[in-house]
Amino acid sequence: MYAISLGDDGAELRPLDPWHAEEFLAHLERGREFINEYIPFGSQATDTAGAREVLQRYADLRAADTGSLHGLWLEGKLVGGVLFLNFDAESGNCEVGCWLEPAATGRGLVTRAMRILIDFAVERRGIERVEWVASAGNANSLNVARRLGFTRDGVRREAYPYRGVRHDLEVWSVLAREWRAAHARAAHNDH
Amino acid sequence: MYAISLGDDGAELRPLDPWHAEEFLAHLERGREFINEYIPFGSQATDTAGAREVLQRYADLRAADTGSLHGLWLEGKLVGGVLFLNFDAESGNCEVGCWLEPAATGRGLVTRAMRILIDFAVERRGIERVEWVASAGNANSLNVARRLGFTRDGVRREAYPYRGVRHDLEVWSVLAREWRAAHARAAHNDH
Amino acid sequence: MYAISLGDDGAELRPLDPWHAEEFLAHLERGREFINEYIPFGSQATDTAGAREVLQRYADLRAADTGSLHGLWLEGKLVGGVLFLNFDAESGNCEVGCWLEPAATGRGLVTRAMRILIDFAVERRGIERVEWVASAGNANSLNVARRLGFTRDGVRREAYPYRGVRHDLEVWSVLAREWRAAHARAAHNDH
Amino acid sequence: MYAISLGDDGAELRPLDPWHAEEFLAHLERGREFINEYIPFGSQATDTAGAREVLQRYADLRAADTGSLHGLWLEGKLVGGVLFLNFDAESGNCEVGCWLEPAATGRGLVTRAMRILIDFAVERRGIERVEWVASAGNANSLNVARRLGFTRDGVRREAYPYRGVRHDLEVWSVLAREWRAAHARAAHNDH
Amino acid sequence: MYAISLGDDGAELRPLDPWHAEEFLAHLERGREFINEYIPFGSQATDTAGAREVLQRYADLRAADTGSLHGLWLEGKLVGGVLFLNFDAESGNCEVGCWLEPAATGRGLVTRAMRILIDFAVERRGIERVEWVASAGNANSLNVARRLGFTRDGVRREAYPYRGVRHDLEVWSVLAREWRAAHARAAHNDH
Amino acid sequence: MYAISLGDDGAELRPLDPWHAEEFLAHLERGREFINEYIPFGSQATDTAGAREVLQRYADLRAADTGSLHGLWLEGKLVGGVLFLNFDAESGNCEVGCWLEPAATGRGLVTRAMRILIDFAVERRGIERVEWVASAGNANSLNVARRLGFTRDGVRREAYPYRGVRHDLEVWSVLAREWRAAHARAAHNDH
Repeated sequence: MYAISLGDDGAELRPLDPWHAEEFLAHLERGREFINEYIPFGSQATDTAGAREVLQRYADLRAADTGSLHGLWLEGKLVGGVLFLNFDAESGNCEVGCWLEPAATGRGLVTRAMRILIDFAVERRGIERVEWVASAGNANSLNVARRLGFTRDGVRREAYPYRGVRHDLEVWSVLAREWRAAHARAAHNDH
Repeated sequence: MYAISLGDDGAELRPLDPWHAEEFLAHLERGREFINEYIPFGSQATDTAGAREVLQRYADLRAADTGSLHGLWLEGKLVGGVLFLNFDAESGNCEVGCWLEPAATGRGLVTRAMRILIDFAVERRGIERVEWVASAGNANSLNVARRLGFTRDGVRREAYPYRGVRHDLEVWSVLAREWRAAHARAAHNDH
Repeated sequence: MYAISLGDDGAELRPLDPWHAEEFLAHLERGREFINEYIPFGSQATDTAGAREVLQRYADLRAADTGSLHGLWLEGKLVGGVLFLNFDAESGNCEVGCWLEPAATGRGLVTRAMRILIDFAVERRGIERVEWVASAGNANSLNVARRLGFTRDGVRREAYPYRGVRHDLEVWSVLAREWRAAHARAAHNDH
Repeated sequence: MYAISLGDDGAELRPLDPWHAEEFLAHLERGREFINEYIPFGSQATDTAGAREVLQRYADLRAADTGSLHGLWLEGKLVGGVLFLNFDAESGNCEVGCWLEPAATGRGLVTRAMRILIDFAVERRGIERVEWVASAGNANSLNVARRLGFTRDGVRREAYPYRGVRHDLEVWSVLAREWRAAHARAAHNDH
Repeated sequence: MYAISLGDDGAELRPLDPWHAEEFLAHLERGREFINEYIPFGSQATDTAGAREVLQRYADLRAADTGSLHGLWLEGKLVGGVLFLNFDAESGNCEVGCWLEPAATGRGLVTRAMRILIDFAVERRGIERVEWVASAGNANSLNVARRLGFTRDGVRREAYPYRGVRHDLEVWSVLAREWRAAHARAAHNDH
Repeated sequence: MYAISLGDDGAELRPLDPWHAEEFLAHLERGREFINEYIPFGSQATDTAGAREVLQRYADLRAADTGSLHGLWLEGKLVGGVLFLNFDAESGNCEVGCWLEPAATGRGLVTRAMRILIDFAVERRGIERVEWVASAGNANSLNVARRLGFTRDGVRREAYPYRGVRHDLEVWSVLAREWRAAHARAAHNDH
């Protein structure tokens, strides 16, 4: 029942829960090829039961306060999402991730949603460091991170075996003080 | 990060999660006597760890899709809440409940929040019957049920032992078709 | 090895345990249509493994002191049973239930067995309220409740979806003091 | 609610369950020294919670069909018990055990109860071998085994450390065919 | 990565772990008939998943310090193994067991490995009694026990149902002081 | 019972298990200040029960094949250790770690032990990437990584809160092909 408006185009951010299994599956079916280019997100979800399992895994992470899944709805259709992973309020660390079906790209949906997630993490939950991990070849993902003010920490060489190749994983991060400074600057730029 | 505005007075409905433990405890401390008159809600929560346990229990129910806890915030202060219990999408049944600290009564907060919960249950989750259970002596609670369109199903005699007395439990319900009809009527009355 | 004689016709009440799986399955096969008219009791038990699962579920309830299953044997044949459900010694509440195959009806077997269960619950376990729940259409079941001295508490409207229809559930109860008074009266009537 | 009469002296065998915790504790308090001479039976049960834990352990064994605890009541007082241990219907093996408080010795209570347990194990559950294990010094226990028709299989040397000494453990057994033959003989002797 | 040389023929004792599943399966395939003559060791391991399950069971015992599995490698090939079972450091008891594929018999591999296991149990872990259990018909196994200095404690009559027959189980043991004395004697005999 | 000699000085690598709790505690007591300078290794281990818990955690990781703990013994005294963490044979990734008490430093013990661990991981378990993570200030640790042929992947800025400060974490790695090349080179250099 919760929803956060992401702007005038009707895009919304909402909790993505196990009862969305059919909707989630339909969305994956539309974008599977594209979504799975770099990460097998939701790849086990090839039927409703599988979709529910994927969503349940995140529901359990949410109950443990170590992660959560949030869907992006555009004109009432689930088109992608953003997520917390390895959320650890005690150490002040968390990771964020995202995915989109092709029809939803190019609108800044992830960027808009991420601002809300990171604001929440930094301002409400005491997170000091937000991490962004992506395959070195995933230029789209890394561009979003850059746009959001993340800094490149390094490359975990060949850490990620996928489709027969070991890929480098870029690790980027933004610290709470950097996030706040960027926002202050952004606010200033609004004038 | 999610919040639903309940009206012009700034009242908001938000998920109530384990990380709210301190805020939840402070709220209980303000209203414990009043809240516990009929039901020992949150009575184990006498320190932060106990408050976190209560909230965790509901977080686990949420992960299992059998319940959830939602706080009522008034001017940024947690003053009460509403909840789903015995939520069973498969059988189309659920129970709702609520609590308030004294300072938040008399404003219709619960009524406003319940409309959102029941709308969600009926329209999004396929719930066919929403149940309201209260001690026979809890006139405030039963009045809210009546106002929301619930019907009295009966009295489970002496089913609830509390503070040395076995209390009758009133069972009220609203069916999905009744809820929708009432809303249509309400919409009509708006003109 | 335990057994309680229910009268001169050789009827006996005994614990019904997972090792009775084959006997339980044979009994269900004889009465499935009839037994499942109002409640899908043991409906998963379509082979020995399924029968054992049903019985194991009750064995686990017994270990947790929240329920137990008791078979009715007539001339050495399992013909039905009675059970405790939602048994909660701390709150003094429990529910009772029963089932029979057609050939065993009309002999008062359930009534005789229930007297023993309720006596045990009230006199040995401190139960203050025994609840009886049945579909509104299940006249046989409600008649037994009435005969045993239960009072009608109300009707949980359309609470029970079964075979495509939402059925009303009648809730009846007998309180410990009512049970004892009825027994005293019964004893008096013996003279 | 189940009970098996053990004879004209009013002795009874009944399931011994977690809700008997207080009665079990009182019994242990009367006989602890004596009971624990050879085996620390119920030695953790020094308060009601501890007594309930011991009984719960056996309730869990019963649910798993690997053991069960049965109390001996004399004139309405719990005075000892008998038990199944390492019950394995699949392999046809089980072990039996017993304990008494001093005031209940010398009446053949254990012998009478064991006949019922072993009959059940052999005739109803397909047990082919019943084992009796006792400290070599526990003459009373070994005498009961002998009287019941058990045969000495051997001595597990120093297998049991207790109170600072490693004790030999006698292992006795009775096979199903021996048990049945002894009963036939006993029946014959009745004439 | 750990290995203990068992002598000049290149035989080695190593931990046998779940990741050896394929190697373990190949070994069982070579010796299944022979290995399973008296005990169904690894009989569920008919594919790699089954083999991994058997090994995982022992890995879990090792984590609980109640057992462990050790492979015998001859010229780089897994040909059998030895194991701890019912290991209980607190009571000072444990059981040992072994198996070989036919090609590895007649070399004293088990005897050599057992010396290392029992030395470890007695000298490092405080085991006071090591037990050896074998079918009465398993002369090879009992001969190894005798050679290692075990004494016959008795026979658990018909305790072991296997392939349609109930077999007697011989129970042998060696006590820590006997083990040490035998070693001293052995050392003396070396001169 | 397993041990790997690390050289002529009698240093040995052995599995470090829960039964070593007392020895592990004594070792930590000698080196706690030093060991905990950068990582709170074993900091919960302030009594034997706590030490056993730490060791049990690793024993459970070992059973799950996701980690393992190995002690370094010098002249029969436990002086430190090396470990696998986040071991994932399927993805071909693992992490290694180490600790020493002060008296054991300066002898290359960790370097020697790591060679054995990494050889095992790369040659026997199919690990393709071994990761080394250390606080940026932990020059000793980073020097060992460098000496072993690890390459610096980057710095996870302020990822590690410890003793009131958020420390940078250096991430280094060696790939299987690099490890093998270095060894070949090392072998060549021996001539």
